[in-house]
Amino acid sequence: MRLPKGYCYSGIVSGIKASGKKDLALIVSEVPARAAAVLTTNRVKAAPLVVCQERQKRGLGQAVIINSGNANAGTGPQGLRDAREMVRQVSQALHIPPSLVWVASTGKIGEFLPMNLVKKGITQAAQRLSPSRYKEAATAILTTDRGPKISLRQGGVGKIKYSLLGMAKGAGMIMPQMTLTGHATLLCFLQTDLTMASSTLKRLLKSCVDRTFNVISVDGDTSTNDMVLILANGRAGNISFKKNSPLYRQFEKKLLEVCHELALMMVRDGEGATKVVRLEVKGARNHTEAQKIVRTVGNSLLVKTAFFGGDPNWGRLVAAAGRAGVPFHPHKLDLFYDQVLLVQKGVLKNSMAERRAKKIAKKNSFGVILDLHAGPGRAILYSSDLGHNYVQLNSKYRT
Amino acid sequence: MRLPKGYCYSGIVSGIKASGKKDLALIVSEVPARAAAVLTTNRVKAAPLVVCQERQKRGLGQAVIINSGNANAGTGPQGLRDAREMVRQVSQALHIPPSLVWVASTGKIGEFLPMNLVKKGITQAAQRLSPSRYKEAATAILTTDRGPKISLRQGGVGKIKYSLLGMAKGAGMIMPQMTLTGHATLLCFLQTDLTMASSTLKRLLKSCVDRTFNVISVDGDTSTNDMVLILANGRAGNISFKKNSPLYRQFEKKLLEVCHELALMMVRDGEGATKVVRLEVKGARNHTEAQKIVRTVGNSLLVKTAFFGGDPNWGRLVAAAGRAGVPFHPHKLDLFYDQVLLVQKGVLKNSMAERRAKKIAKKNSFGVILDLHAGPGRAILYSSDLGHNYVQLNSKYRT
Repeated sequence: MRLPKGYCYSGIVSGIKASGKKDLALIVSEVPARAAAVLTTNRVKAAPLVVCQERQKRGLGQAVIINSGNANAGTGPQGLRDAREMVRQVSQALHIPPSLVWVASTGKIGEFLPMNLVKKGITQAAQRLSPSRYKEAATAILTTDRGPKISLRQGGVGKIKYSLLGMAKGAGMIMPQMTLTGHATLLCFLQTDLTMASSTLKRLLKSCVDRTFNVISVDGDTSTNDMVLILANGRAGNISFKKNSPLYRQFEKKLLEVCHELALMMVRDGEGATKVVRLEVKGARNHTEAQKIVRTVGNSLLVKTAFFGGDPNWGRLVAAAGRAGVPFHPHKLDLFYDQVLLVQKGVLKNSMAERRAKKIAKKNSFGVILDLHAGPGRAILYSSDLGHNYVQLNSKYRT
Repeated sequence: MRLPKGYCYSGIVSGIKASGKKDLALIVSEVPARAAAVLTTNRVKAAPLVVCQERQKRGLGQAVIINSGNANAGTGPQGLRDAREMVRQVSQALHIPPSLVWVASTGKIGEFLPMNLVKKGITQAAQRLSPSRYKEAATAILTTDRGPKISLRQGGVGKIKYSLLGMAKGAGMIMPQMTLTGHATLLCFLQTDLTMASSTLKRLLKSCVDRTFNVISVDGDTSTNDMVLILANGRAGNISFKKNSPLYRQFEKKLLEVCHELALMMVRDGEGATKVVRLEVKGARNHTEAQKIVRTVGNSLLVKTAFFGGDPNWGRLVAAAGRAGVPFHPHKLDLFYDQVLLVQKGVLKNSMAERRAKKIAKKNSFGVILDLHAGPGRAILYSSDLGHNYVQLNSKYRT
């Protein structure tokens, strides 16, 4: 498939990771691009995010430097100096203004970056830049992930042909709650060769992230470093496009597809996860209440361990919904496993439904719907299960 | 030690539990007693709690029937009929009015009680009643607990000598949030031979529960069946006592001791737990914000698995605090492991502090303090760690 025009990539071993794996990635556009990002809403923000918040105002970007193995979070003023130094190094190596360089980090919290290694790494990464090395870059941003997460789409309207490439990482500390103003960590870098006004790019990104990355949870922990950054460099030859134009609508659809694909890869790759469960709460009084319930249920330890055990333990689901702090009538609640109505008006429908739900709960991927029959409110969460490997990984691994 | 006067107990095997373990307990006072209870705030309330809410109004009680192995929750109108039938059976067997019989259940959610077995069991339990069989009763209320949880205190002012006995169960689905109006489940039954006005008894119970059971969490899941019930039968010979009298103050202290002891037994016996961690947030703007942070940190999977691993992974603690939805300044945050200041103004103090914190984090029991330096707000949570056995138990066990 055609890659977005005008982008170069590299991913190298700088030595930040003790494992000796790739840990420094560089993404560069040959011309300044429109840039928009959504960032974590965590009160504790990693140093690179402070730099990104500054970049957000102008809405421009030409290079992104990303390190894994160290989150540069909980590092105070020194951390911020280090993030700015990374920007300065990239700016020098590429001969572009520092204001066009974005920076991101993921890994251990509370340790200072080994800046001498990072500096050498940046020089090396800048020398290796090539349009074909996007897989290298996608590998260098990983931490506990099983492998790189890449999604590519192409489209076109009339004479304009364009591509959209997304690379992401994240398997733990995943319950993103990102906003335009706003830790493992979710990182996602999107590149397209279309261009558009900054305001359009922001609106599109926010809307797609809210329906994809912001509705997944591996462990209910929101990171200090989450960010999704999109660059749009215009090398596809379009000038700009307006809201609701055919190009806008098509691009929005492609962006949604890429974000959805990458978000689901994260849930599937959730630390220790064996299953992906699509949880839906509907019939709530409003979206906020539906969201509160879906997050409480999807992050319940008892629900997640029942998923791991392949047990349609609806009592745990209902009990978790009941503690979400949202008023509803338990005797009106219906609960489905895929298409099977298991609980009707708050009680088990019958033993046939239970047998069918048992088969569904053993699958790698299924859906659960809770219908409160109280209003139009609806929310979705893609959640993973909680198994032995989660505990193994996280009692040893130092985020 | 002297037991509270005028109480009889029994605990038997009725056959509700497939394991063949004791599953039906009866507690009876020889005279009607003042009674007060705090109940779960979960919107999904088990049938017995509906009956208890009715009893709450009169504030009287003479008998308590408790079954384990089946929560009688998610059982709709049939469940409520079954709870009332249990009351009626006890009333008949003991020749006391049904209005003086309280009922509690714990175990699987969503299954109907085997009422024929329960009925036979009640007859048998009534025949076995004896003042010395309190350990039997304390055993019959257990589910995933490793063993019975009993606490006994005695006191006296002037000629009045009294005792307070508490028995409790609970190892999972433990983050009680109980109120006077208000799921495994926490169950606690307290008996004293003092007596006092219903309003005094309610106030004392609420105040003690808020400082003990309501500040523990094993897994962050609040049950449909939680309840703490106190009976005060006056057999110690006192007439009544007023707020702030010496007897009031002494009894409040003893009640607090018993509730604290039982609450800590639950955390120590938390499913798969190997550690008890006392988390304290101080310096928040107010208590509500402190409580929000302490619960978010104490229930974070990443924090709990780090506790299991014996790793002073403060980055996870700080990241969890940051996502609690409470504004604070990360650069003002101090964090202690026991007496060791590990993080000062948001960054690691030094490697010496880190070495000392590592030793503390390996202990079975320690404290963590987060000081936000923003106000007088303070909250505590006693939390357990999350280990392999938690997953093992809960992927197999059906609550």
